[in-house]
Amino acid sequence: MGRWEPNTRQRLAKAALELYSERGYEQTTVAEIARRAGLTERTFFRHYADKREVLFDGSGELRDLFVAGVSQAPGSAAPIDAMAAGLDAAAGPFTDRRTFARQRQAVIGANAELRERELIKLASLSAAVAETLRGRGVPEPAASLTAEAGMAVFRIGFERWIADGEERTLAELMRDSLHELRTVIGADRAAREGAGSPPSPG
Amino acid sequence: MGRWEPNTRQRLAKAALELYSERGYEQTTVAEIARRAGLTERTFFRHYADKREVLFDGSGELRDLFVAGVSQAPGSAAPIDAMAAGLDAAAGPFTDRRTFARQRQAVIGANAELRERELIKLASLSAAVAETLRGRGVPEPAASLTAEAGMAVFRIGFERWIADGEERTLAELMRDSLHELRTVIGADRAAREGAGSPPSPG
Repeated sequence: MGRWEPNTRQRLAKAALELYSERGYEQTTVAEIARRAGLTERTFFRHYADKREVLFDGSGELRDLFVAGVSQAPGSAAPIDAMAAGLDAAAGPFTDRRTFARQRQAVIGANAELRERELIKLASLSAAVAETLRGRGVPEPAASLTAEAGMAVFRIGFERWIADGEERTLAELMRDSLHELRTVIGADRAAREGAGSPPSPG
Repeated sequence: MGRWEPNTRQRLAKAALELYSERGYEQTTVAEIARRAGLTERTFFRHYADKREVLFDGSGELRDLFVAGVSQAPGSAAPIDAMAAGLDAAAGPFTDRRTFARQRQAVIGANAELRERELIKLASLSAAVAETLRGRGVPEPAASLTAEAGMAVFRIGFERWIADGEERTLAELMRDSLHELRTVIGADRAAREGAGSPPSPG
């Protein structure tokens, strides 16, 4: 197989994840990844800047899809509905990646530096979504709060999606998590307002 | 002044933050911090493990207060109300620290490593709050979603609190942000349900 065939990236990613799972992320070298994939180190570096990049390769695509989903929601959509459209759009490419995602999350969970990188990815996604919402005319703090709520739903929907035995799709689990968030956030509204604590003017 | 007087820690923290603001975090040494505070390096290291520790010294206290607020809420309180009690409790010590908090945030915002540390602090706070909620009998995913919503409110309330010219208290701004989150999250519920999309069974 020539080194330019379209699935070179995927072969490298698969080999890397196998090795990270088998012997640990720190203990794996790029040379070993290339060897496992039947390719050269040079080919690896033509596709990825370093061994960490393999795990975060989808960050840009995720952000682009999420932001496009939010910005393409109908102008009349409430901020939370625009955000939900972003979640739906972002879930798309994950459909056939559950096994990969499970392995990836196990590798990330075992390494402090990778966990940090994952948190930064979500914080930057949140900032991009908030900016997109502001672009739709949503004022602050509503834009940032909606974006952060979206990240909570994304993160927890994702955790549920990769749980053992889970078969629902990521999109379903995120919709369900958003519904659950609505329920927990709104649960006591009646009680609070009934207790005479007036809503703030914000 | 003897080195054992009670405000040694505060003097060191004040000197550190001044220097981080004036010349940058990376460029400041522990020797310089000690000198500015009129103390020795040895005294610095008796109080802080390193120069980063000065900026994250309150993390443990913040977590303890937040968790205590959540766990001490009446047993009948809804999860979101328990979380709101945690936010109120956590806001307590910040009352007279707004200037410090503003300086601290500017230093953190200017340094990638410190921003990562701050994200980790919030993620670990979220995990502690979720665990406390589960201890109160709140099932998953409601516990994690409530905790994440709490972090969103904390983070955005905090950002508003340190904004130029802001005079409301942190507790007020967090309550206002929680109210705002309720509004954005619930805004379209009627519209959605009216559109015939049934709520998920979760």
